[in-house]
Amino acid sequence: MAAPAPVSPLAPKKFPSLPVLVGVRFASVAAGVRYSGRTDVTMALFDRPADVAGVFTRSKCPSAPVDWCRAQLPHGKARALVVNSGNANAFTGHKGAEAVAAVAAAVAKATGAPANEIYMASTGVIGEPLDASRIANALGALLDGQKPDGLMDAARAIMTTDTFPKVATQWIKIGDIDVAINGIAKGAGMIAPDMATMLSYVFTDAPVDSAVLQALLDKAVQRTFNCITVDSDTSTSDTLMVFATGSAEDRGVKRITDINDPNLVPFKTGLNKVLMSLAHQVVCDGEGARKFIEVNVEGAASRKAAKRIAFSIANSPLVKTACAGEDANWGRVVMAVGKAGEKAERDKLDIFFGNIRVAHQGLRDPDYSEDEASAYMKKPKIVITANLNIGGAKARVWTCDLTKEYVAINGDYRS
Amino acid sequence: MAAPAPVSPLAPKKFPSLPVLVGVRFASVAAGVRYSGRTDVTMALFDRPADVAGVFTRSKCPSAPVDWCRAQLPHGKARALVVNSGNANAFTGHKGAEAVAAVAAAVAKATGAPANEIYMASTGVIGEPLDASRIANALGALLDGQKPDGLMDAARAIMTTDTFPKVATQWIKIGDIDVAINGIAKGAGMIAPDMATMLSYVFTDAPVDSAVLQALLDKAVQRTFNCITVDSDTSTSDTLMVFATGSAEDRGVKRITDINDPNLVPFKTGLNKVLMSLAHQVVCDGEGARKFIEVNVEGAASRKAAKRIAFSIANSPLVKTACAGEDANWGRVVMAVGKAGEKAERDKLDIFFGNIRVAHQGLRDPDYSEDEASAYMKKPKIVITANLNIGGAKARVWTCDLTKEYVAINGDYRS
Repeated sequence: MAAPAPVSPLAPKKFPSLPVLVGVRFASVAAGVRYSGRTDVTMALFDRPADVAGVFTRSKCPSAPVDWCRAQLPHGKARALVVNSGNANAFTGHKGAEAVAAVAAAVAKATGAPANEIYMASTGVIGEPLDASRIANALGALLDGQKPDGLMDAARAIMTTDTFPKVATQWIKIGDIDVAINGIAKGAGMIAPDMATMLSYVFTDAPVDSAVLQALLDKAVQRTFNCITVDSDTSTSDTLMVFATGSAEDRGVKRITDINDPNLVPFKTGLNKVLMSLAHQVVCDGEGARKFIEVNVEGAASRKAAKRIAFSIANSPLVKTACAGEDANWGRVVMAVGKAGEKAERDKLDIFFGNIRVAHQGLRDPDYSEDEASAYMKKPKIVITANLNIGGAKARVWTCDLTKEYVAINGDYRS
Repeated sequence: MAAPAPVSPLAPKKFPSLPVLVGVRFASVAAGVRYSGRTDVTMALFDRPADVAGVFTRSKCPSAPVDWCRAQLPHGKARALVVNSGNANAFTGHKGAEAVAAVAAAVAKATGAPANEIYMASTGVIGEPLDASRIANALGALLDGQKPDGLMDAARAIMTTDTFPKVATQWIKIGDIDVAINGIAKGAGMIAPDMATMLSYVFTDAPVDSAVLQALLDKAVQRTFNCITVDSDTSTSDTLMVFATGSAEDRGVKRITDINDPNLVPFKTGLNKVLMSLAHQVVCDGEGARKFIEVNVEGAASRKAAKRIAFSIANSPLVKTACAGEDANWGRVVMAVGKAGEKAERDKLDIFFGNIRVAHQGLRDPDYSEDEASAYMKKPKIVITANLNIGGAKARVWTCDLTKEYVAINGDYRS
């Protein structure tokens, strides 16, 4: 990983401008945690305690900061968020927990926030002790540098092997008042269902109670971040959090305290869009990715079966290398359907690349044109659809192709 | 896949000579199923009906020949086995079933064997109709060419992307009489638990009833072929069969009809050794493989948990690319333990590469020498051990590394 990787060909052509939210400011500094010549610690500071919700990795060996955040979450309020890149503080044992406690104590002292309103995350190398003093020593600069429009800088500071910063934004109307939802994320390897080495932070000025926010987030993650996979590997550090400053209340938006409040509908839609955009960007920056792949499974016996089959296709190295090779190799899709262990009948299975039906009822589609399929496979976005034709359930997941560059990035050939 | 791949660096240095078994003969011919200039159909013919046992892919979309073999197996007797390479006759719908029936009818006519004593397999491209006449037309030559010492040729005829033929043999003693067990196999991609595109045939002159043979095989496969993975992909065609000619009965070996017969003990040991050797050879010929990797999980809560964690490590692209890069990246092993979803306590976990303990109780081992670990990673065989230290159960599985060559072989970059 000597030279920085070139920017993914799937990166967005331009970044949206992120609206400034009242009630939260950001600062990012170069603290020398591991990298030099770039920012590697970012802090978000809330004027008043923000409502907060979060979901975390399901790894049985979570990182020390994940343990910390989980412990604070029931309190439901946040005053500060500190994230460093370069070191994941994962598999660092009691030293890792001590480093988190030391950073929290330093942040509490510097900001006056109680420890249980401080959130943290670390991303980078696993198994190396994190030097808490690097972050503690940077707190002065982080406090001095606070600015309302610092979110794009924050998106850059949390990058590791990412080749582009990931940001998304949505304006929604609650009643007739404009409210904004901004989000940032970082990938890029170890992406799998249950989120993986993925950090994502969403900020909104909507006034939503933390319990409502948590219920929304638990549901939204199922169809967004939990529907992406890069390499089926799940990290120890996955973190997705939403912070609601509530400052729109000052502009007349009524606080949302009930999951059935009709005002929640536009907010939910906006949140889903932000999360979906960020999740897709994480896939587009999958290590070595050159193709964005959408996998649809239709006609399955149940939603659960559909999702399991979709991931079986999306995680198959043979399907992913076929996409890299621009090869409409539907036999490998059949294989992946078959190995998923869910109900499927070979002689009912239809497979499509884009709108091209390549297999129909257990046979190669007689009308299928190899040339047309080959042309389709050259596109940067490939949609694979498997219709099982045995039920009414469906699922959609996203992944990227598996290229030699993925192996090169992760193999780090020492020769 | 234009030029043939170079022989795997993990191939055995020499092949064992396979003893001739009384009661079975072999022939292999070039029938032009797909390849030219090489044998692609092989036939084994039994003088008297052999006892037979088999296990097959758990894919929900099995190939037509797998359907056929499963249907015949309860009869327990075999007179002929016909295997072609070049075309898997998988996902070929009713045409596939018709092709199998046509081949069976032709074999029955040519040999006089009843259809339910004829076994078949096909390996190669998925989704292309199999031209049964190519095989039927070759039957004359297959009958003419029968010879007792044709097993090595058969091992070559069933190869697809294999870079070397896979054979194994064991002499055992039942009482004081020598009995032989010979086996052949082909890989090489789509290898996963539940066997994958893997064909393996074992022949013995031991007189063992088919029901006993089946019970032995069901058990033996659990610790051999079901403990290997190349890329987590499972094929539609996996087949492992054992044929017992019983001719050793003529030399005084008593027929084994009871699973508790003490004479079964040496046979079971020999069968396990043959299956283990073949399974390891399949891994050593994994597409692009340069390292043979053994994964041991110890101290787990249950055997099932241990095996699941072992496969989580063995199937992790990040662990496999680290091995390819000769990088003692134990953080990725931690990640794979964590993502398996089984009980694990970070602060009790020990990780070893070979005999080198790189992590101890949730921390990098203070005595661990990076130089020593790097030197170890250069070896062609790498043993990774994760001791969870929470229970007494263990599991051992085998895989290979993930290299750029794997992507090149399967990506078939059309550019």
